[in-house]
Amino acid sequence: MSKRGITPKEKNYSQWYLDIVERAQLAEASTVRGCMVIKPYGYAIWENIQRELDKRIKELGASNAYFPLFIPISFFSKEADHIKGFAKESAVVTHYRLKESDDGKSIVVDPEAKLEEELIIRPTSETVMYDTFSRWIKSWRDLPLKINQWANVVRWEKRTRPFLRTTEFLWQEGHTVHSSHKEAEKQVIDALNMYVRFAKEILALDTYSGRKSDSEKFAGAVDTYGVEALMQDGKALQFGTSHDLGQNFAKVFDIKYVNKKGELEYPWQTSWGVSTRMVGAVIMSHSDNLGLVLPPIIAPIKVVIVPIYSEENKEEVNRYATDVLTKLNTLIDDVELDDRDFVTPGYKYNEWEKKGVPIRIEIGQNDIEKSVVTVVRRDTGEKTEINKENLASEVSNILLEIQQNLLDRSRNLIEEHTHEVSSYKEFKEIIGSKKGFVKAYWCGSKECEDNIKYDTKATNRCFSKERKGKCVYCGKESTEEWVFAIAY
Amino acid sequence: MSKRGITPKEKNYSQWYLDIVERAQLAEASTVRGCMVIKPYGYAIWENIQRELDKRIKELGASNAYFPLFIPISFFSKEADHIKGFAKESAVVTHYRLKESDDGKSIVVDPEAKLEEELIIRPTSETVMYDTFSRWIKSWRDLPLKINQWANVVRWEKRTRPFLRTTEFLWQEGHTVHSSHKEAEKQVIDALNMYVRFAKEILALDTYSGRKSDSEKFAGAVDTYGVEALMQDGKALQFGTSHDLGQNFAKVFDIKYVNKKGELEYPWQTSWGVSTRMVGAVIMSHSDNLGLVLPPIIAPIKVVIVPIYSEENKEEVNRYATDVLTKLNTLIDDVELDDRDFVTPGYKYNEWEKKGVPIRIEIGQNDIEKSVVTVVRRDTGEKTEINKENLASEVSNILLEIQQNLLDRSRNLIEEHTHEVSSYKEFKEIIGSKKGFVKAYWCGSKECEDNIKYDTKATNRCFSKERKGKCVYCGKESTEEWVFAIAY
Repeated sequence: MSKRGITPKEKNYSQWYLDIVERAQLAEASTVRGCMVIKPYGYAIWENIQRELDKRIKELGASNAYFPLFIPISFFSKEADHIKGFAKESAVVTHYRLKESDDGKSIVVDPEAKLEEELIIRPTSETVMYDTFSRWIKSWRDLPLKINQWANVVRWEKRTRPFLRTTEFLWQEGHTVHSSHKEAEKQVIDALNMYVRFAKEILALDTYSGRKSDSEKFAGAVDTYGVEALMQDGKALQFGTSHDLGQNFAKVFDIKYVNKKGELEYPWQTSWGVSTRMVGAVIMSHSDNLGLVLPPIIAPIKVVIVPIYSEENKEEVNRYATDVLTKLNTLIDDVELDDRDFVTPGYKYNEWEKKGVPIRIEIGQNDIEKSVVTVVRRDTGEKTEINKENLASEVSNILLEIQQNLLDRSRNLIEEHTHEVSSYKEFKEIIGSKKGFVKAYWCGSKECEDNIKYDTKATNRCFSKERKGKCVYCGKESTEEWVFAIAY
Repeated sequence: MSKRGITPKEKNYSQWYLDIVERAQLAEASTVRGCMVIKPYGYAIWENIQRELDKRIKELGASNAYFPLFIPISFFSKEADHIKGFAKESAVVTHYRLKESDDGKSIVVDPEAKLEEELIIRPTSETVMYDTFSRWIKSWRDLPLKINQWANVVRWEKRTRPFLRTTEFLWQEGHTVHSSHKEAEKQVIDALNMYVRFAKEILALDTYSGRKSDSEKFAGAVDTYGVEALMQDGKALQFGTSHDLGQNFAKVFDIKYVNKKGELEYPWQTSWGVSTRMVGAVIMSHSDNLGLVLPPIIAPIKVVIVPIYSEENKEEVNRYATDVLTKLNTLIDDVELDDRDFVTPGYKYNEWEKKGVPIRIEIGQNDIEKSVVTVVRRDTGEKTEINKENLASEVSNILLEIQQNLLDRSRNLIEEHTHEVSSYKEFKEIIGSKKGFVKAYWCGSKECEDNIKYDTKATNRCFSKERKGKCVYCGKESTEEWVFAIAY
């Protein structure tokens, strides 16, 4: 472990991630098994993500609404595939009252207060929403219906890791209903592309995206599309999915509408979501051995000013620093002046580097005399002197450059770690040594997919393109190239 | 019931409220007992409230964070008073897995997957947060700590009513930790006043606010302060509370810090919250027999434009309407042009009145010829012709006037329904006939409070002022005047 408490990623990538989550004060384990506490700094990143994403969700025409946390257990029995894939690892509410223990010293569950039907804490809201949609939708005039929900969901996970996999997590789930399969399919792709653009423009993450294989699709869906990012250890991380639900749920929840011809029809549905997992993807993708690195757009603090003074020039330096703050605030929100006088500038550099603040501005006697400030970039470590006069616009530009640089790095990482292979030997060699994304022909059989996974731990991440070749595993004719990777 | 499906409030106030919630498409009961679905239009009001309130909470210096939904049952056994007041009517998670039934046709709780310790769905987060705070707080430098959480909470209610009382509801809970009782007391009052100002400036609601009596205070608090609004039926509605928790929870959860003198001390805590109940307060306070009335600041749609045309002038009218929309958008967000051509203008008036849109703009041939529009206020029904030229600024002004008018009405309602009484006979007469707020001396004894409640259903809402007199019930010397009312 380094002096600042961060294990180098080359030594132990998994520990490096946990160290950053801790040292940057993003989250911590709670006393409740598998649940995390999202600390203010981590939550501020999530709020920035939420705000940007909410705009784009509304641009897709969806309105926010809120549905119950509880789902009657019988709802899960309705959609056969949904049962198999989802309902299993869920939290179950069986009682609704507590009482004092006989000795009056503690509190216990009141056995008398047993629910007639158990309630499941939502692992996702298809069932509880679609039960309601069946009452909302009557005619073609009610379509398309586009609803989004920001909520907490619970999936009882055995092994958890902050942001990436926790028992309770926060997410948004979009649910839409359409009068034709074609329109629903377009919605699935529109939502997918919205996530792809969001990853690129806001999170500075390049991705692969596309249709999933049958074994990787959502329980109850006709088709699932996923967005896959690449972590620095060469493993893929799925951070968003978009599902074509066909008429599967409509039939089960009896959603019907009268079409323009006056006939009763089942509509076509989609659902799509991303979660606090995105925060994990951002941390893992951009950070380094000094700590967190954040794309400026989602950074809670974009610029930190650190004054360097002695007892003699303290007042003068602080006055200059306040002046710099005022100038920056004309163009940039979220600038912080760190004027704590009980820690050294070096301590402050350390702390803000760990927390991934994109730009640090140092101000000392020298800078004042030259009417400049010293600007240090978090992503490259590069130091520049900038004239105080055009400070705000120059610093704004550097923030844009940082955002772009992180995206370029992400793009390069994917390019360098994408390999087209022609034999299974090569497939195994690359997955075994460099990891990353491997493009290969696949015949579409579950058997080949399972065997590849068994041999290499790599799974089918998404469809790549139509192309004629031979299945990398069995050698049969194939018309499709797919992207494989070992995934989180 | 009137033609538009709203029971007149004079006939049945309670049904009138339910009709408005339904007809304005704000919320509906879900299949899950006691839980509501907040529909897009109702949720948009909540989003506007959230955005405005979040700013003010951050101005108080609090940061948002997120803590687990689940609370181990043993946490509730720690604070003796908290047990008594709160933990009773809660949802209890006992299992964490489901399985297919033996016949494979449904899903059942897996009896093998029983939790070692039951988990309570948070009814409020003091316990789970303060367990964490005990690890965050070490020195005086960590204080004050100010955390806010936006979350869903669950209290198993027997009788529910949309927004006003539901098993699951949405809220914000602020939790702060201070190094002195004085500072904590200031925070309690600052939070209270923030709510009072929010009610006035954003919700257009005048209120009473002040300290609660012992029997009405929060379980585990030293003192509770409340904000009380008055509904049109003369009943009070508490929509926010702020608690001085003293050192009660700090002692139980072992939160300690080293003060400036190097000594270990327990800090002082506060908590304060408001919920989706506020939406209920807004609906009940401002609406009329035509439907919902909304303060413009929180209205999801502030202005609706309804074009009135025949087949001949349809194009011309719609062009003019679009032009009006563009003009309004220069100054006002959330303007909607209702250009549906399968319903009549009259149908549209009805619908937007029910939904409480503050301003309706009617555009017909006559208006076009005179280069004006007809503006109709939802709060007064008043119609004015406004010249198209300075439309945006005039309509902005009318929105401000409506906001002010609703506040004036609320203030008048409270003034008209506040009575100072000098005898218990008078107390009973007023509560029995006019209801409203009654100011009376009270000696401070629980017995008198209980007797008053038993006789009249009126409870002690909050402290009014120091003043010498005789207790309205027992006649003993009293130094305090209190505000009583029958409450929701």
